[in-house]
Amino acid sequence: MGAMGTEAPVLQIPFYSPRPKIYMSLLIKNCLLIDRKVDVYIEGNRIKKISPDISERAEKTIKADGKAVVPSYANTHTHAAMTLMRGYADDMPLHKWLEDHIWPVEAKLTDEDIYWGAKLACLEMIKSGTTFFNDMYFHPRHVTRAAMEAGIRVCTGPVFLDLFNAERREEEIKRNERQIDEMLKVSDGTVKAAICPHSVYTVSKAGLEWCRDVAKEHNMVLHIHLSETEKENADSVKINGLRPAPYIKKIGLLSPKTVAAHCVWLDEGEIKELARLGVNVSYNPVSNMKLSVGSALKYMQMKAAGINVTLGTDGCASNNNLDMHESMKVAALLQKFHTNDITIMPAAEAFDMATINGMKAFGINAGLVEEGMLADLLLVNLKKANMTPNHNLLSNLVYSASDSCIDTTICNGKVLMENRVVEGEEEILTKAAKVAEQLVRKAKM
Amino acid sequence: MGAMGTEAPVLQIPFYSPRPKIYMSLLIKNCLLIDRKVDVYIEGNRIKKISPDISERAEKTIKADGKAVVPSYANTHTHAAMTLMRGYADDMPLHKWLEDHIWPVEAKLTDEDIYWGAKLACLEMIKSGTTFFNDMYFHPRHVTRAAMEAGIRVCTGPVFLDLFNAERREEEIKRNERQIDEMLKVSDGTVKAAICPHSVYTVSKAGLEWCRDVAKEHNMVLHIHLSETEKENADSVKINGLRPAPYIKKIGLLSPKTVAAHCVWLDEGEIKELARLGVNVSYNPVSNMKLSVGSALKYMQMKAAGINVTLGTDGCASNNNLDMHESMKVAALLQKFHTNDITIMPAAEAFDMATINGMKAFGINAGLVEEGMLADLLLVNLKKANMTPNHNLLSNLVYSASDSCIDTTICNGKVLMENRVVEGEEEILTKAAKVAEQLVRKAKM
Repeated sequence: MGAMGTEAPVLQIPFYSPRPKIYMSLLIKNCLLIDRKVDVYIEGNRIKKISPDISERAEKTIKADGKAVVPSYANTHTHAAMTLMRGYADDMPLHKWLEDHIWPVEAKLTDEDIYWGAKLACLEMIKSGTTFFNDMYFHPRHVTRAAMEAGIRVCTGPVFLDLFNAERREEEIKRNERQIDEMLKVSDGTVKAAICPHSVYTVSKAGLEWCRDVAKEHNMVLHIHLSETEKENADSVKINGLRPAPYIKKIGLLSPKTVAAHCVWLDEGEIKELARLGVNVSYNPVSNMKLSVGSALKYMQMKAAGINVTLGTDGCASNNNLDMHESMKVAALLQKFHTNDITIMPAAEAFDMATINGMKAFGINAGLVEEGMLADLLLVNLKKANMTPNHNLLSNLVYSASDSCIDTTICNGKVLMENRVVEGEEEILTKAAKVAEQLVRKAKM
Repeated sequence: MGAMGTEAPVLQIPFYSPRPKIYMSLLIKNCLLIDRKVDVYIEGNRIKKISPDISERAEKTIKADGKAVVPSYANTHTHAAMTLMRGYADDMPLHKWLEDHIWPVEAKLTDEDIYWGAKLACLEMIKSGTTFFNDMYFHPRHVTRAAMEAGIRVCTGPVFLDLFNAERREEEIKRNERQIDEMLKVSDGTVKAAICPHSVYTVSKAGLEWCRDVAKEHNMVLHIHLSETEKENADSVKINGLRPAPYIKKIGLLSPKTVAAHCVWLDEGEIKELARLGVNVSYNPVSNMKLSVGSALKYMQMKAAGINVTLGTDGCASNNNLDMHESMKVAALLQKFHTNDITIMPAAEAFDMATINGMKAFGINAGLVEEGMLADLLLVNLKKANMTPNHNLLSNLVYSASDSCIDTTICNGKVLMENRVVEGEEEILTKAAKVAEQLVRKAKM
């Protein structure tokens, strides 16, 4: 994603209904937790009890025979509303892709487009088992509204992108101030506000410094693209006299609140520094391959250094879906292929990256099915051809599953999907298809 | 796959029912063919007419509003019954994987295991839109029976694997003679018999020569693993004085009836020779990455030389699913990543590899939705989050789709799945899970 969108007058639309129901208590009967049959009792938004036979009565009971209970996924780097550009432009050189296709469309984006694009993204994520996403795009309050209506967790903020132009920087600061203010007002347990300086190749030093100060002031997540390509590194050395990581470290952007996306071209010293400073890394293997970034994340070095490596899909213009099953698989495949080591990133590690590590990066106490954890859970349908036999559930989830295996998605105790049904799906599909078509038509005019 | 299975007495079980219904005529109303709304009229096993408004009455009518019609997929390299080993052993060094896990299980395989493993594979393929698979494994008549019951096309034969042992070669010849004879008896429009010398590193020269002669005698497909790893090349030079491709060319194994799987480590001269001799190549990107084969198919050189490049999933022990959507996507991603060229293998080429190219390699007149072609078709549900918006159907199918988008699968005019329902699914899942569990238990004893 790149250029800044135009901002239409703030929408004054009330929350869309139907919204997911909130139950005081929820009982999941007879699900498989790894290799034991258990009941899971959820009170409010937390897992209260896990036991083979729970007799407590609950407001809502789900019969889960033939289903496994697993933690839901955390997608730590995406541009949700870019669902509208899914399949719009692929397989072309980066500058042509951006300049002739993506930017002209983004220049026409209205807040209503963003809203419906994000609604579509939330639907796709719920359908494939994701209950948290870390977003970077325009009009974050409309992304937030879409996520709140869908019932899934979001961390988002306005992208900051001044293209080294002082006048534009002032505009960006004003826009960011206003939009972050809006975000902070709605922040709660499921919504987090982030500051999102796009990258060292699109934001001036003064811009990065402003972002640093705002992040510190509000103790916000700082979400940035970092060392995605070799060119980004080389250009940074030329312009800033430093590679991207030491450059933003010097400015003070690296902390445990930092989520750095891509990080493909970090060197060993930089990896150690990121580890020391507690920075979270978001690995985006599908996007890295589709955009031919030329190398793969140095996963083993990051693991050895103790970095919290998480998993993201990136936006739909460079993936083109939001399915974390596919991203887990490609994550492991790419590591094995690139390092020539078949044993690297076994299924269980890929699964942890997509669940507990992702949640941890954002301080969300989820990612494990354990008493006391937040109730962000999936029921996986084991009666599926690609989940049979069940020699190893985590291997099946990472190497064989698709969205179709996810039967039930629960976030913060709310049932967002049951038997693959999400309320309001039809309207979201129709409306998102329509705005996407209109958007592309406008961009071509 | 490696060691030879034990063969139990031939099963004398009648064909399983329910089998897919055969209609004299089938009318698909209101489907989207690229960008026009059409009806498709199928008579017997062929597409008779495609037109915006067909008034002919048919024995069966499918309302396809909101669905696109596309050709179904051809999976040109797999070991179908290895579904039983899905997730059984991953992420370990090759020799440990084979010697400690795969071979001990294969040594216990009965023909009934193969049958249920293949039934599970056929179910998974139908669910994800594949109507033809090229198989190499043990007990091919039971694979064939599974495919015939499921109603999908198969090319299969007994794997030939003498491990350079003269005594074993004689046994293999006897077994192959008997099993090929059985296969030839049931061969028809949807069943093809193949001869399957495993590879140059597992079959003696005399064994390869025998395979060559049998293939010629019966004008059969010859299916072989070729240049999958650098080690295979180096070992062949050491043992045979030639790299694998020139070695089997010299023996006379290369012809337009040859399907060579993997071909990752061919050099430019070998590619030109394969092209000249009309050999079909099966690209298996997911398996290549999961098994860390160290390089990627030289797709551009193959394309330039005019080789018919097709797509395979490989078996479930090294993938771990049979979904051609994923294989199309990883095929394109791996090419882009490995060559550093974002424009290589655009979506439409990946789609052709998975459809028309695959069918062509086996002389099946399918892979295109056109009048006169065999009726191997899919109805794709466009009302899915990951298929919305529909800027470009082929891009969505290659880069975003999953099995859940396939609504209806038609093979040879027969409706194998409608509204995602395959008759007999529950029993196949239950039985395959059971035999897989028993098999693994036997192998551990």
